Amino acid sequence: MENRKKGFKNLVKNLNEVPKSLLKAEREKVLHSPFRQIFHIESKMGQLNDPNGFSFYNGWYHLFHQSFPLKFTTNPNYFEQGWHHYKSKNLIDWLDLGQSMSNDTKFDDYGVYSGSALQVDSKLFIIYTGNSWVETEKDQWQRKPTQMGAWMDKDNKTVKISKPLINGPLQGYTGHFRDPKVFRINDFYYVVIGAQREDLTGTTLLFRSKDLNEWQKVGEVKTNIEQNQGYMVECPDYFLLGNRGVLIFCPQGLKTKGNHFQNMFQVCYFIGNKMDLATGAFNCLAMRELDNGFNFYAPQTMLSPDGRRLLTAWMSISNGNDPTKKYGYTGCLIFPRELTIKENRLYQQPIQEIQELYTSKIQGKQEVLQETVLVEKGSNARDIKLKISCKQDSVFIFDIFSDSKNERHLRLIINALKNSFIVNREKAGTSFEDEFGTERSCEIDSSQPIQLRIVQDISSAEIFLEDGRNVFSMRVFPSKDQNYIFVNSLNNKTTLEYQINQLRPMRQYSKDEI
Amino acid sequence: MENRKKGFKNLVKNLNEVPKSLLKAEREKVLHSPFRQIFHIESKMGQLNDPNGFSFYNGWYHLFHQSFPLKFTTNPNYFEQGWHHYKSKNLIDWLDLGQSMSNDTKFDDYGVYSGSALQVDSKLFIIYTGNSWVETEKDQWQRKPTQMGAWMDKDNKTVKISKPLINGPLQGYTGHFRDPKVFRINDFYYVVIGAQREDLTGTTLLFRSKDLNEWQKVGEVKTNIEQNQGYMVECPDYFLLGNRGVLIFCPQGLKTKGNHFQNMFQVCYFIGNKMDLATGAFNCLAMRELDNGFNFYAPQTMLSPDGRRLLTAWMSISNGNDPTKKYGYTGCLIFPRELTIKENRLYQQPIQEIQELYTSKIQGKQEVLQETVLVEKGSNARDIKLKISCKQDSVFIFDIFSDSKNERHLRLIINALKNSFIVNREKAGTSFEDEFGTERSCEIDSSQPIQLRIVQDISSAEIFLEDGRNVFSMRVFPSKDQNYIFVNSLNNKTTLEYQINQLRPMRQYSKDEI
Repeated sequence: MENRKKGFKNLVKNLNEVPKSLLKAEREKVLHSPFRQIFHIESKMGQLNDPNGFSFYNGWYHLFHQSFPLKFTTNPNYFEQGWHHYKSKNLIDWLDLGQSMSNDTKFDDYGVYSGSALQVDSKLFIIYTGNSWVETEKDQWQRKPTQMGAWMDKDNKTVKISKPLINGPLQGYTGHFRDPKVFRINDFYYVVIGAQREDLTGTTLLFRSKDLNEWQKVGEVKTNIEQNQGYMVECPDYFLLGNRGVLIFCPQGLKTKGNHFQNMFQVCYFIGNKMDLATGAFNCLAMRELDNGFNFYAPQTMLSPDGRRLLTAWMSISNGNDPTKKYGYTGCLIFPRELTIKENRLYQQPIQEIQELYTSKIQGKQEVLQETVLVEKGSNARDIKLKISCKQDSVFIFDIFSDSKNERHLRLIINALKNSFIVNREKAGTSFEDEFGTERSCEIDSSQPIQLRIVQDISSAEIFLEDGRNVFSMRVFPSKDQNYIFVNSLNNKTTLEYQINQLRPMRQYSKDEI
Repeated sequence: MENRKKGFKNLVKNLNEVPKSLLKAEREKVLHSPFRQIFHIESKMGQLNDPNGFSFYNGWYHLFHQSFPLKFTTNPNYFEQGWHHYKSKNLIDWLDLGQSMSNDTKFDDYGVYSGSALQVDSKLFIIYTGNSWVETEKDQWQRKPTQMGAWMDKDNKTVKISKPLINGPLQGYTGHFRDPKVFRINDFYYVVIGAQREDLTGTTLLFRSKDLNEWQKVGEVKTNIEQNQGYMVECPDYFLLGNRGVLIFCPQGLKTKGNHFQNMFQVCYFIGNKMDLATGAFNCLAMRELDNGFNFYAPQTMLSPDGRRLLTAWMSISNGNDPTKKYGYTGCLIFPRELTIKENRLYQQPIQEIQELYTSKIQGKQEVLQETVLVEKGSNARDIKLKISCKQDSVFIFDIFSDSKNERHLRLIINALKNSFIVNREKAGTSFEDEFGTERSCEIDSSQPIQLRIVQDISSAEIFLEDGRNVFSMRVFPSKDQNYIFVNSLNNKTTLEYQINQLRPMRQYSKDEI
């Protein structure tokens, strides 16, 4: 356990305890990165991971994220883990409010872990997991997870509720008990919380409360179908969509099955009838994977004032060894998405507000039969919409992040002969995580024209196939010269209709707007 | 239909009709290739495809293959398609007997297509599909497939039987009717033949004969389970193994499903009870893919004199656009394998005779935790046997065809965390067929030590996982400097036991041995 002690040696309760010159140097390092995103929320320094407290309050959207700002400092390596806070009027342009909640109480001294938020009367109610360790002196470190509350006011000040809402660990479960997601239905507030049973299997626990103070355990969410949920469930999120109940969750430790569950960790969901909230009984269909890409984890949803179910998530690097690490940071969030249900599947689309980012546009229609440049240079920040009509035996290739010779690229392949869609990241830039494979794929129906949409930023691509029926999220780390787009069609021609919108950067709010 | 006419313009009945200087020039070109295999049967010039007539007769193993020797000639482009003949005492060293059967009768004037052979009394009985076209003048070319016979004597001379054995096309079926595989069980000779129904679905037809002259149609092989067999079945092969019946066949046009059926064409099999040969009824288990690699097609089996079921196949390039084409040739056969059944699956292993190729050997055991050279330079012709003991979270990487910096390689990954095996060909050499993906994968059980065996030649790798439970066959076209082997283990250490045998080239028979 020596390493664990060492890791926590320079535990600080708040960034104030760290020399300002160090913070400035860390921030400086980040700005040298060639991979900075322009319209995605991204780590300011150190590690960004799970989004938290995604909500609407006081006329603003609020979005927090797990922040470990000093993770890559050395000599000494400081430890501080809390929430970082953004707010926005339009879900597009985000105002950075800085560090919000720090690991400064005895219940969360080793980390203000993930949680959620919900407007209650005139304040924002926050619930999160406080992480602490006990028995540290005897080298028998035990996790002590506590579900904690806080209230945020209109000045964005948070005050933690001193009394724990739910003490852990619970009998029959290990210390892995975290990520409360709060929601209200009828007379009760509820939270779903990720948990690990003592037999080291994952599950979701449901609690309810009349007053947000006294919480009663309802029990495990009990689906009608037998389903291995790995060794631990993280970040569960239950909500109603139309007349259906949806549970999104992150089962850890699923083994690869065909072209599913290939990442280190994955996100899955159940769709079913509305959950019986008095018992946790949930009558649902078979589990599905939410995103087929390389980097997608810890999603969280919210209900927008206009009734849309919005989704954010961590565009994760599972082992943190991405090429941005040497610039002192890692991690970004996805561009927000709207969820809908069709044919008992979740469909995902970039929120319509993306149009506010549009600057110039090119569009056209062409028959493709050989490798051709479609876009020459320019910023990689684009919203690309394609309609692809393949011949029965044609293989259509769409390369983004290409260099001028198209030797490097992120390659998208629609193989009509095989009804397959493949995205290949191997030549997209600096290699990372290749041990989990460099291709991701799904089956498609290429007898119909295929809708393909790509939201591209400087170092990411979010690919929406067939109106978001399948989505592939991923990070890529290209060189500066990789800003072309190429198309090709093998075997036979393919008709391509395209609309490519260039996207502006997220703008800064001015003082009087805040 | 202009192109078809043009393709056949320089139809020749026999290689004798082609200028000797042209043949010599073609052969010369081939010898300049840096990709020539040293212990696999490979095209001498032009195209090699399906293996044919794999059999034992007169003290020798006989193996023919589809040969289109003038395929890449230009000005003029000659057309000749027949069988090329090899024989061997040990299945290792093959004597090249040259062109065997040519497209020289009215039933096979457009190609002596695939077929099989079986010793009958003192001769070798051959059955094959003669390919002809009718209505060629009216630009309404129709295939006319005829199942033809031939007898080969001890001097390796073949005489075609002038009367067709089975005339095609049959009522209810299209002109795609080919690849007879002959076998004898009890009082009858049988053939299974690939066919396309008029509704453009694939099936296997069964015929029987008492005397090899009069053939009676039994009907379609009728499995008890509904199974899409694509738009055409090629190269069916039925045999008994232990107390089971096995049908191997090539269903064309299967769409990709997860990590299965990713190649343009694939090979599948049914295992079941013995087929009812009077009706074609076949009670069997679900269809499986025979090989998970990139290049494997048109297999054919035989029963060796010592009772083993041996397998050969075309290590195919589906579109013929491999990098050897510019040297005037394409195609090779796999190294012969022995088939066995375990847990209702076919297991494949290189035939034990491979040991006769062994020259020097290195072996050892080591703990791997970082990228390390295992073999520096040397010939890539190797039989590599590994026992890999992963930690629960380790990711073991085995790179063959590596350059000295390991920037290029054929990469094999065992990811214990995901229970997955991945082979990635993208950086293995000259790119080809990338539109069908650059990775192939399967699930494994990494909680036990994993047996991995690789039969490597100059431009191919045949990978046998877990005693041949899963096999991956593929061509690769590396540069000359790619003759290292690297190992690595990420996350945690892996214990590797290895035995690497260098292999000698196939030797030439001397005159008095023949």
